[in-house]
Amino acid sequence: MSSKPTPHSPLPTKPERSNVVWHHATVTRARREAQNGHRGAIIWFTGLSGSGKSTLAHTVEEALHQQGCRTFVLDGDNVRHGLCGDLGFSNKDRQENIRRIGEVAKLYMEAGVIVLTAFISPYRADRERVRGMVEQGDFIEIYCDTPIEICETRDVKGLYKKARAGEVLEFTGISSPYQVPENHELTVKTGTVSLDACVQQVIDAMICHGFVPPLKLGQDIGNKP
Amino acid sequence: MSSKPTPHSPLPTKPERSNVVWHHATVTRARREAQNGHRGAIIWFTGLSGSGKSTLAHTVEEALHQQGCRTFVLDGDNVRHGLCGDLGFSNKDRQENIRRIGEVAKLYMEAGVIVLTAFISPYRADRERVRGMVEQGDFIEIYCDTPIEICETRDVKGLYKKARAGEVLEFTGISSPYQVPENHELTVKTGTVSLDACVQQVIDAMICHGFVPPLKLGQDIGNKP
Repeated sequence: MSSKPTPHSPLPTKPERSNVVWHHATVTRARREAQNGHRGAIIWFTGLSGSGKSTLAHTVEEALHQQGCRTFVLDGDNVRHGLCGDLGFSNKDRQENIRRIGEVAKLYMEAGVIVLTAFISPYRADRERVRGMVEQGDFIEIYCDTPIEICETRDVKGLYKKARAGEVLEFTGISSPYQVPENHELTVKTGTVSLDACVQQVIDAMICHGFVPPLKLGQDIGNKP
Repeated sequence: MSSKPTPHSPLPTKPERSNVVWHHATVTRARREAQNGHRGAIIWFTGLSGSGKSTLAHTVEEALHQQGCRTFVLDGDNVRHGLCGDLGFSNKDRQENIRRIGEVAKLYMEAGVIVLTAFISPYRADRERVRGMVEQGDFIEIYCDTPIEICETRDVKGLYKKARAGEVLEFTGISSPYQVPENHELTVKTGTVSLDACVQQVIDAMICHGFVPPLKLGQDIGNKP
């Protein structure tokens, strides 16, 4: 900083040091990861509405948090009305929605956080675009494979009923396509396999990819309030 | 989950437990903050180009990281080409830029992270909008008060020269207004006071606002590579 006081500014309270130059990020991803004891990573859950993405993401998060990991779940609850509050449901807006979520997930990852995203993200191209934003090995895609018949019997938000009645247009799986993953890292049978077992499969995949050190998961993770 | 197997799905490998219901976020902001030993918060630096926002934010971050805090700096380097890569420099786009940054800062805060933002953010209304997104006490605004004459002598990116030559239009402080904060929490004289002293003022403000417990800052924070 070669600045000198001008007539408009007070004198420095302390002389500036000649070795103080333009500082940029010294707290790197690697330092954060060392601090956290695990890697930053993106765990991308995809699947139909009601397939259990959000439930699984939050339950995995609970297990990781209990092991001291730094985590965050991005889902409709925290981005639809905030960051993506200006977006509708057109194809263009859906694409932009996933793009922004991908960018935010990447920022979390850079902060050394394990970010778990729970969005239908029905299009392969959108998911591949997010994968392409980060280095290979930073991103795993997990397909929550619940048959639509089961999603529909769950119908937590009553959306399938509305979609069948034509009250919700372009509903994924009913009137809008869902493109089943082809190059993903893991399929979990969230419709038929117990939540505990699904959680364990996700954790195992994370360990296998070197995101977290092996954990000693309790047997009651799925029961936590 | 009241699902039952359909003809299209395999039998469960393990019976579903009746107490496994729809899970939502159990890892709350409060639990993350307890884990981190400090609060999540937004430290919003504002000031002219070259006023030292980014330098100050990164140096504060270094000090906090050394004390075990979880931090992240949002600045042009990590959002301009990513999350906000679709935005230009029109008034509307500048406003949207700050809105998205505010939303992302809020998400980091919810994750228990101290997020430091370093953007010119020249308009009071935009800064107030971000302040309004979060609870009172979650956000502090810090004005990096460097006289434009000093910013211009620094001119690290050569932008003032271009702006004076008319090669950069709507340049804050030259051909576009900068609205000096009125309801901000702290002014730091980043043009005339040493970096170390500015860092200490920011840290003191953070302690005063209860974001972090009192730290024992080394004397050489500003020297770190």
